[in-house]
Formats: sequence, C-alpha cells, structure tokens
Amino acid sequence: MVAGEGKLQNLPIILVVEDEEPLQEIVHDALKEGGFDVTTVSSGREAVAMIESGVVNYSALVTNVNLKGPMKGWDVARLIRQIDPAFPVVYMTGAAEDWAAQGVPNSILLKKPFAPAQLVMAVSQLLNTGSSTSP
Amino acid sequence: MVAGEGKLQNLPIILVVEDEEPLQEIVHDALKEGGFDVTTVSSGREAVAMIESGVVNYSALVTNVNLKGPMKGWDVARLIRQIDPAFPVVYMTGAAEDWAAQGVPNSILLKKPFAPAQLVMAVSQLLNTGSSTSP
Amino acid sequence: MVAGEGKLQNLPIILVVEDEEPLQEIVHDALKEGGFDVTTVSSGREAVAMIESGVVNYSALVTNVNLKGPMKGWDVARLIRQIDPAFPVVYMTGAAEDWAAQGVPNSILLKKPFAPAQLVMAVSQLLNTGSSTSP
Amino acid sequence: MVAGEGKLQNLPIILVVEDEEPLQEIVHDALKEGGFDVTTVSSGREAVAMIESGVVNYSALVTNVNLKGPMKGWDVARLIRQIDPAFPVVYMTGAAEDWAAQGVPNSILLKKPFAPAQLVMAVSQLLNTGSSTSP
Amino acid sequence: MVAGEGKLQNLPIILVVEDEEPLQEIVHDALKEGGFDVTTVSSGREAVAMIESGVVNYSALVTNVNLKGPMKGWDVARLIRQIDPAFPVVYMTGAAEDWAAQGVPNSILLKKPFAPAQLVMAVSQLLNTGSSTSP
Amino acid sequence: MVAGEGKLQNLPIILVVEDEEPLQEIVHDALKEGGFDVTTVSSGREAVAMIESGVVNYSALVTNVNLKGPMKGWDVARLIRQIDPAFPVVYMTGAAEDWAAQGVPNSILLKKPFAPAQLVMAVSQLLNTGSSTSP
Repeated sequence: MVAGEGKLQNLPIILVVEDEEPLQEIVHDALKEGGFDVTTVSSGREAVAMIESGVVNYSALVTNVNLKGPMKGWDVARLIRQIDPAFPVVYMTGAAEDWAAQGVPNSILLKKPFAPAQLVMAVSQLLNTGSSTSP
Repeated sequence: MVAGEGKLQNLPIILVVEDEEPLQEIVHDALKEGGFDVTTVSSGREAVAMIESGVVNYSALVTNVNLKGPMKGWDVARLIRQIDPAFPVVYMTGAAEDWAAQGVPNSILLKKPFAPAQLVMAVSQLLNTGSSTSP
Repeated sequence: MVAGEGKLQNLPIILVVEDEEPLQEIVHDALKEGGFDVTTVSSGREAVAMIESGVVNYSALVTNVNLKGPMKGWDVARLIRQIDPAFPVVYMTGAAEDWAAQGVPNSILLKKPFAPAQLVMAVSQLLNTGSSTSP
Repeated sequence: MVAGEGKLQNLPIILVVEDEEPLQEIVHDALKEGGFDVTTVSSGREAVAMIESGVVNYSALVTNVNLKGPMKGWDVARLIRQIDPAFPVVYMTGAAEDWAAQGVPNSILLKKPFAPAQLVMAVSQLLNTGSSTSP
Repeated sequence: MVAGEGKLQNLPIILVVEDEEPLQEIVHDALKEGGFDVTTVSSGREAVAMIESGVVNYSALVTNVNLKGPMKGWDVARLIRQIDPAFPVVYMTGAAEDWAAQGVPNSILLKKPFAPAQLVMAVSQLLNTGSSTSP
Repeated sequence: MVAGEGKLQNLPIILVVEDEEPLQEIVHDALKEGGFDVTTVSSGREAVAMIESGVVNYSALVTNVNLKGPMKGWDVARLIRQIDPAFPVVYMTGAAEDWAAQGVPNSILLKKPFAPAQLVMAVSQLLNTGSSTSP
C-alpha cells in the first residue's frame, strides 16, 4: 500500500523499539507499506529519551516486550505514558499472558507470530479518533 | 492490496468529497489499493445530490472538513445522515478539536497527517458488521 | 503488503471455508497480501475435522455462509466454538440480515460486495488483543 | 430505585422467561426496582408467541438458558431475533461456557450468581442508544 | 440507592435541561437516587450560560431534545462541547431517529419511555473512565 | 436495590481495599445496595493474600489507589492480575491522571467524587459477559 507515498509532505512517524535485526526490518517494512514513517531504536532508554526531548513529534510506540537489558517493553510504555498519558502503545511478544498485569490501558498486544497487516491495523486503530459501533 | 481486483463483479463504492487536487489523488489511490471503488466530487452540494438521487449505491462518505464554499464537511455528513441514518462517515482534517462538537455519532476522524492505511482501516471498520472484543 | 513475507518463521494460518472457486482465489489472495498463511477447504465438515484434529494450529475461521450441502457457515462456526470458545470467526454473505439470529458473539460479518482490505481488517481485528478507545 | 414510578405514563416492558418460581420473583423485583415493567412467562414457546402477536411492544428479553422442555434459552433468542433482528437479549445461566457457541451477537450473559444490579445494568445497556468511549 | 448520601463531601453535579415540570421531577429523583446532585434549568440558554460562567463544576449534561424555544437539545450539546470537548452528554427524546444526524459523538440517547435506571446508567457510563471488554 | 437479597443462595463477593473508615462504609453500602456481598480489607497485602489463598471465590477488586503503606492500588491490581489475568479491577482515586501509565488493561477508574451508582455500574459492567453495540 504505497499510494501517495512521498506526496503528503509529512507522515505520522512511528517509534519502534526492537533489538533483533531481522525483526527490525520486518516491522519497518510493514509500517512503511502502510504509509507510516518509522524510527527504530534498540533500547527502551533511547525511546524514552527521544520522547522526552520532544524534538520529533512521534505518533505511536511499537515495542518488543522482551528487550535485552534492564528495561522491558512494559517499562518503556509506562515511562512514556507518564510524559504523554494518551500516547498510543503497541506491544509485540511471544508470551501474551503478561499483558493483563503489565500492560497499560488502551494498548494493543500483538502475539507472535503476527501478520504485517495486524501491525498496520493496530497502529491505525490507535491513531484514528472515532467511535464506531456496527451499523 | 490489489488481489482480486476486477474479479468481484462489483466493489463497495466510496464517495469522496475533496476540493484539493493532490489530496484527491492520495485518497483515491489509497482506497483503490484497499480494493474499493471511488467516486470523487469537489463540493458537499454534489455529494448530497448524489446520495439523494439514489442512482448509485454508495457505501461510505469520506469528506474533508475544510471545504471551500459555504458547506463544510460537518454539514455534508449531517445532511446525508438525515437521508440515511446509518451511513458510514469518515472526516479528514488538520484541526481535530471540532469533532466532539460538530461530528456525527459513529464516525471516524483522521487527523492530518495520516497514513493511507489509516484511511483504508477507517472505512473498513465502519463497513464491517460485527462485534469484536478481544479474545 | 508482502513486507517480511517468508522472514517470520511462521505466520498465522487462516482456515477458509468457501466452495466457489473464484471466491476461493480472491479470499486467498487478499489474506496472503496481508501476510497471513491460508488453508482453504470446500465444506464445513472438513473445517470442523481439521480443528478437531488439532494437527495445525489455526488462528481464525473465514467462512462463506451459503455453503452447498447441509452444513451452513452458521453451523461451522457454532461447532468450532464448542471446541474452542474464543476462536475468531468472520462470515461472508450476500444477505446480512441473518447474522443477528444465527451468528456467534464476537464475530464479524462481511456483506458482499466487500473490498479485500475489509477482509484483512476483520481478521486482524479479531486476532489483536487489546483495548483501544480513541485518544 | 423507585423514583418516578407510576409517573411516566408508560415504562419499557421487559419479557422474562423463567420457569423456577423463586428466580421469577428475584428477576421481577430487580427489574421493578430499576423502573421497568415486567411480564414473566414460564416457557420459550409463550415468549415467542407473545413477540409474534405484536400486541404488546416489549423492549427486551431476559431468559434463563436452562429451561425445562425442548426449547432452551438459546432457541428463544434465535427465534425472536428472526422476527426482530435488533431485539435486546440477556441470558442467565450457571454454565457460561456455551455463550460463545450458542449466544446471539450483541447479547449479554449473566453468570449465576449475579447481583440484581447486574441485571438492571445489562438491560439498561442494551436499551440505551449511544456510543461512549471514556473521556 | 441512597447509601452514603450526604457523607461524601461533594458529589458529581448533573446539569439537567428540561422544560416540562413532571419530567423535571422524574429526572431529578432518578439521579438523586443514584447518588448524584442535580441542577435543573428550563432552557438551553441557561445551561450554556452556566457552563460558560464556570462557577460550578458540572460533571454531565442531561437534556431533553424537544425544548420549547429556538434552542433544541442538539444545539445545547454542540455549544457546550465547543467550550469543553469532552463534556458527557445524554439526550432524552421520543423520536430517536435524529440522533445519527444531530447528536454529538460519544453521547447517549434515551428513547422515551425509559426507566430511571437507564438514566442513571447512561450518566454513570459516561463519567467512568475505563476500558472494559468482557472477560 | 435490595430485591431478592438473601434469596439467591450466594451473591458475587467484591473485595474492597480501603484504609479510610468513612470511605469503607460508603463503598460497602453502595455495593450492598446493588446486591453484592462485600469483604473489606485495609491493605493491599491482605488483599493479595486473600486472592492467593483461594479460600473465597472473589468476583472483583475495588481498590483505593492512594493506600497508606508501600503498596499502592496500582501494585495490588498488578499482583492480582499475575494470579488471575482476567480478574475485574476498579480503581478509586482523586487524581485520575496516573491511570494511563499505572493502570492495568480492561479496568475502570472512578474519579472522586463519584456517585454510589457509578461504583455499582463499574463493577456490574466488568462482571457481565457480553457484547453490546447500540441497536
């Protein structure tokens, strides 16, 4: 889905936290296909710093849960929500059970394996403002 | 996402109201990529007339809010909902704040800049009948 | 949307019940485009048998409602939900009215004609775990 | 909650299907407390007949699932939804598992034991038209 | 439901717009029973003035749609949402059809006749912050 | 709303964590009015111990956020969700902002001051299994 790519002067920028290279590429490619711009970092520390700096106006966080290092995806989301309580959050994990205890409200969890379309839809759903009950 | 294009004898037709040409093309291309047919008009007056005539069976309205001329996107949606109370409505705008006062219920607002995938998802979500809470 | 295809070692596999060949192809292509793997069968009986056997771990059911033979799509979904009460279900039909009486809870109905993107979004929405109210 | 009882010239009338007398009374009293009028029948056959006759304009169905006789609560709801596809349905049951396979979409299930307030809230939620995401 | 009445030092105050006296009383009594404080005015003009003044911190608007005078309930809600875009809104009306064209997003409509419990639930649902999908 | 009290052989039991005595009474009375049984403890430590022991089958947690001692309401909910990932959670707090960062998914937050009916509705909504989009 590359229609209009490069024509909208700016696109929503998604901040991705992922420390495994093949997954970085899959996530990057899926979001680019959906028409999003993507910034990828390898640690939660970097992600929080980038939100804190406020230099770039990110639209959503997509984070792996099981990051190497002390800061897990759960921590990244909580710290960013303390800065911006409405910040959209998507988690990626192989073990979905912990979301009910560790996730933040109004977030979406993608259980691996997931299709690229699920990631694009999760981000889109969190960004769209609206109320839609079925007709 | 052009799988099957031309094979389904008819596709849902989306009525787009947009008076800036580059945006017309972006919206058109994104919806075509998602597999929808698209009719684009430049004014709310035309859109309402086409729904009123009933000649074509449109599936959803996608309208810019800040149209030139007296009729804004908010007015287009209200007039069409008076004709068909369940008609799906997607607004596009740079200033999202007015939706809470001027939008119709069960509509979706896309705040610019948005990715093409967000538009496709907004229309799809309003067209799909269903109830899905997470498993 | 084929980003990353083949790179994730496994993808969610969608079980499709459709007995008309052109529709089999459209549904298959749309889901593959979204990044899902697809298994297509022509009867509800086969579908239920495959879920029962437990050999493959299917992620969701997409079923035509008006199947030839005694078992309609409504029956397929009910039988599979008796095996797995949380199994995601998408119906495809030209006559949407019966869903309120014959559908299972937390399912999505696609009324024909539908765009390929609607199918991909329906499946994605049922697979994603999460709670998202608009910001 | 008996405010205004008798002052509104008519109140919504809830059709209750329950064949155990103590439960009839509990359900009746809870709904009356909430300000609803109540008609109680002991079998699904009677309930369907009353909806079919159209003499009284019932607002919602509250049905026990495990009724004596051949017609279970699941059947009552499906038959009534064939007459009125938007008819609100609340099930009461001790064994909640079957809802995912046997329930109709957009229904609510009360698992016994439940508090009277849960019943009043279930009926109210199905009757109120609206879309409310949290502020 | 008068538990705790008078013990919480302050209660949420609901602003009611209703110009028929018997209905004023019914609405007042139902909300008091639920534990809310109530301020009733007879015109939309007064309601908007009270929100604008900011003297009292109202928690929600409950308005009849068919008010005497030029300002209908639809107008009251739109004007108040321009002041506070997240203000909770409940409409009361005998003719529910117009809500889809004239209502604001994230509002609830009570179709007459309604039970007092429906009013209490509508207000409570709009005030509670949260996300609850069924377990 | 005391209809049927004592007639249902058991009622859902709500576990309340509150360390201020007047609030204990308000919460207790509101829930009893709604027809729930109530167990009140003064610390999160006790609450977690009671869920862990499994002696009583509690239906939901209602917890003040700002508890004295080291364990806040946020911690209580996370610990209990690690034991039972679907356990219904209602928070009560004067400062609502932290919920987006500290709350668990699928929980409800009551911002003080709240009416007793809001508490009863929050608990009921989390207990009721169902999917209800507006008719």
